[in-house]
Amino acid sequence: MRKKRHFTSFQIISLGFFIVILTGSLLLMLPVSTNGPGGASFWDSLFTATSAVCVTGLMLHDTAQYWSYFGQFVIMILIQIGGMGVVTVSIAIAMLSGRKIGLMQRSTMCEAISAHHVGGIVRMTGFILRTTIIIELTGAAAMFPVFCRDFGAVKGLWYSLFHAVSAFCNAGFDLLGVRSEFSSLTTYADNPVINITIMTLIVTGGIGFLTWDDIKTHKIHLKKYRMQSKVILTVTSLLILLPALYFYFVEFSADKWSGMSVSERILGSFFQSVTPRTAGFNTVDLTMLSEAGVFIMIILMITGGSPGSTAGGIKTTTIAVLFSSAFSVFRRKGETNCFHRRISDDTINHAATILLMYLVLFLTGGIAISCMEGIPILDCLFETASAIGTVGLTLGITTELGFASRLILIVLMFWGRVGGLTLVFAAISGKHPDFAKFPMEKITVG
Amino acid sequence: MRKKRHFTSFQIISLGFFIVILTGSLLLMLPVSTNGPGGASFWDSLFTATSAVCVTGLMLHDTAQYWSYFGQFVIMILIQIGGMGVVTVSIAIAMLSGRKIGLMQRSTMCEAISAHHVGGIVRMTGFILRTTIIIELTGAAAMFPVFCRDFGAVKGLWYSLFHAVSAFCNAGFDLLGVRSEFSSLTTYADNPVINITIMTLIVTGGIGFLTWDDIKTHKIHLKKYRMQSKVILTVTSLLILLPALYFYFVEFSADKWSGMSVSERILGSFFQSVTPRTAGFNTVDLTMLSEAGVFIMIILMITGGSPGSTAGGIKTTTIAVLFSSAFSVFRRKGETNCFHRRISDDTINHAATILLMYLVLFLTGGIAISCMEGIPILDCLFETASAIGTVGLTLGITTELGFASRLILIVLMFWGRVGGLTLVFAAISGKHPDFAKFPMEKITVG
Ligand SMILES: [K+]
Ligand SMILES: [K+]
Repeated sequence: MRKKRHFTSFQIISLGFFIVILTGSLLLMLPVSTNGPGGASFWDSLFTATSAVCVTGLMLHDTAQYWSYFGQFVIMILIQIGGMGVVTVSIAIAMLSGRKIGLMQRSTMCEAISAHHVGGIVRMTGFILRTTIIIELTGAAAMFPVFCRDFGAVKGLWYSLFHAVSAFCNAGFDLLGVRSEFSSLTTYADNPVINITIMTLIVTGGIGFLTWDDIKTHKIHLKKYRMQSKVILTVTSLLILLPALYFYFVEFSADKWSGMSVSERILGSFFQSVTPRTAGFNTVDLTMLSEAGVFIMIILMITGGSPGSTAGGIKTTTIAVLFSSAFSVFRRKGETNCFHRRISDDTINHAATILLMYLVLFLTGGIAISCMEGIPILDCLFETASAIGTVGLTLGITTELGFASRLILIVLMFWGRVGGLTLVFAAISGKHPDFAKFPMEKITVG
Repeated sequence: MRKKRHFTSFQIISLGFFIVILTGSLLLMLPVSTNGPGGASFWDSLFTATSAVCVTGLMLHDTAQYWSYFGQFVIMILIQIGGMGVVTVSIAIAMLSGRKIGLMQRSTMCEAISAHHVGGIVRMTGFILRTTIIIELTGAAAMFPVFCRDFGAVKGLWYSLFHAVSAFCNAGFDLLGVRSEFSSLTTYADNPVINITIMTLIVTGGIGFLTWDDIKTHKIHLKKYRMQSKVILTVTSLLILLPALYFYFVEFSADKWSGMSVSERILGSFFQSVTPRTAGFNTVDLTMLSEAGVFIMIILMITGGSPGSTAGGIKTTTIAVLFSSAFSVFRRKGETNCFHRRISDDTINHAATILLMYLVLFLTGGIAISCMEGIPILDCLFETASAIGTVGLTLGITTELGFASRLILIVLMFWGRVGGLTLVFAAISGKHPDFAKFPMEKITVG
């Protein structure tokens, strides 16, 4: 009975996303949504709506040039719904999951705990919405002077708001193609205000609301944080710092980047390090990167952000769990620990499953697109990593792709956004009763 | 106390490999080992000896042109020691591992079981050596007519033997560079005898001796086989058939391959499908492959052969365990099953660790070499995958690499060969006593 209900919840969420995407597609098909005459085709609209709701940011048309203000507004709303939808859903699951554990441990206290956690969900959802609005408005205010100077007051206000929402939700949509198509933030590469504001919004949105809850509750008492928050903060710091060092000392030291000033190089290194883990803006021309740089970006895109946030990818916690598990295997320790807390075998299985799933989908998609389109494999893998990690960076091939390839990207985006939830559901829902327990048999691996 | 002994066993094995490699290097440095005047340098000899003992097959010099008959003989002996060494060691571990499980389950029967399994090891080692000799001689006999026709009786005999040993041990060394440097088996692309014999030797050597034991004991009664043997046979069949279909229908259907006859195309498809999973011969010019084809080869190289064999890579069983685990997670089944047998959580952890370890080493090595040498990343990843999977295929960059890059390849080859054994040891040796059992805490992954 319980099993059935959980399965239905997941169906409801998938269906919810699907309906939002479909509604968005229909709105974007209206002639009023586009600047040119006629309207967007269904498939173009579907691709754009999927990209927006899944906060990916892959585009067939430059947002600012192709879509009208109405179309842009629809896209912003889709981004906000998609971003917050996943967050609230996954927070609710995390809370219910806590309830489930409490239920198993202390079945007599079931009702009380349940009530407490339903209260927790309501409280948390309120906290999420308030925080989102405050942070997005603050970000918009910070960017307003720059956009106001460049585009005038009204357009500047719209630009500030749109980019704050897009950055906080890690969507990667931008309106700066008015200067040159698909230029993203390259024209602001030397502007510290835009760079730092956008980076802050991305990181804030990407570390997840449970982490924010810890920061709000425990302030600087790091020791009191949830183990998960400690893991997220540590891994996120490393995944920002290490690639930034690579970009500064290896990538941007090449002759072709000699036009960069030192401050621009520092900003560029950090920005290109922050953005692939699912934001999807860029301040340098990505096609100018070395192949090693492109590959590092692919790895970062697959890695993604943190759970319970607007970010996609296999998540920082998954990476941490896998490395901790590997460490404990090599050390021949019986259990996997993180920050003095034990991690369950189920969690490790799930982490391995997620890694495998992402690898299989990303590689299969990339190879298929490369075979069908005759495009270099590295560009295709960049594209599929971007889609499944809901990043939105591209080496410029999105617009050239045929129908089948676009469909692959749509599926990868959708799966990258809601696919992970299946596993979270698996973690909290009751397991199937085992009708036949098989005897254990040894198998040698490695 | 027991922990100490196991750790020492591993040290002994690593040291054993190291001593064999070093002795081989010194022998190859002798002036008599090379055709030209002087002798090989230490680093060239070390690279070649490591490549031979780790049955990899990456070469700095063409084996037939650079090394004298004495040098070639040394290389063949190193291949045989390396190949059989790992097999007997891993069989011994598998047997001891069985004893360990028995010991824990039925401690009173300890001595009896122990005796039985030590007997098992002796019996198995004998079986391995007999089977190896019989199969290698049969293979040599099958190829002798062809090589005798082409090179005369004496040289033909030597060639038959060398290639039989190299193929059965999945080493990938060949002597056909006499025709043109590094040409591998391309000059025999249309010869069914050579193709089929080499393929059979590769597959026979690559499925592992425990599987052969099952085949010998239970003949066609597949149901009585070990679960591991069933997994190995199933995964191996799929990993030969599916890439062969890709090569036949996609890769070799391109215009540039139009010179191939149908029989050549069938042979070539199967050969290029069999060889990357650690054999390392090739019958077509690999630099002519499409990028997607190269990438599929990289995946096959990383995958590798089966445990308890001469093959390297992350192994067919590891892949099977990971997919079964993922399947059970998605189906929300409480346990992971393969062929009606349960797989332990420890095994799944080990499989995930192996996948992670191979990915990290292969990617890090590839990116480092690409940065240092300025070679396209795909070529570098092909090279590092080839090294860590002990395959030996190359897109031709091995000879161009600098000192640091060669050192990376040496480390990857050594690790690809003996690194996996650390984990096998971890699986059977006692776990560290847990001084502090930490409380479990939930962490969300994916
Ligand atoms: K994005
Ligand atoms: K090999």
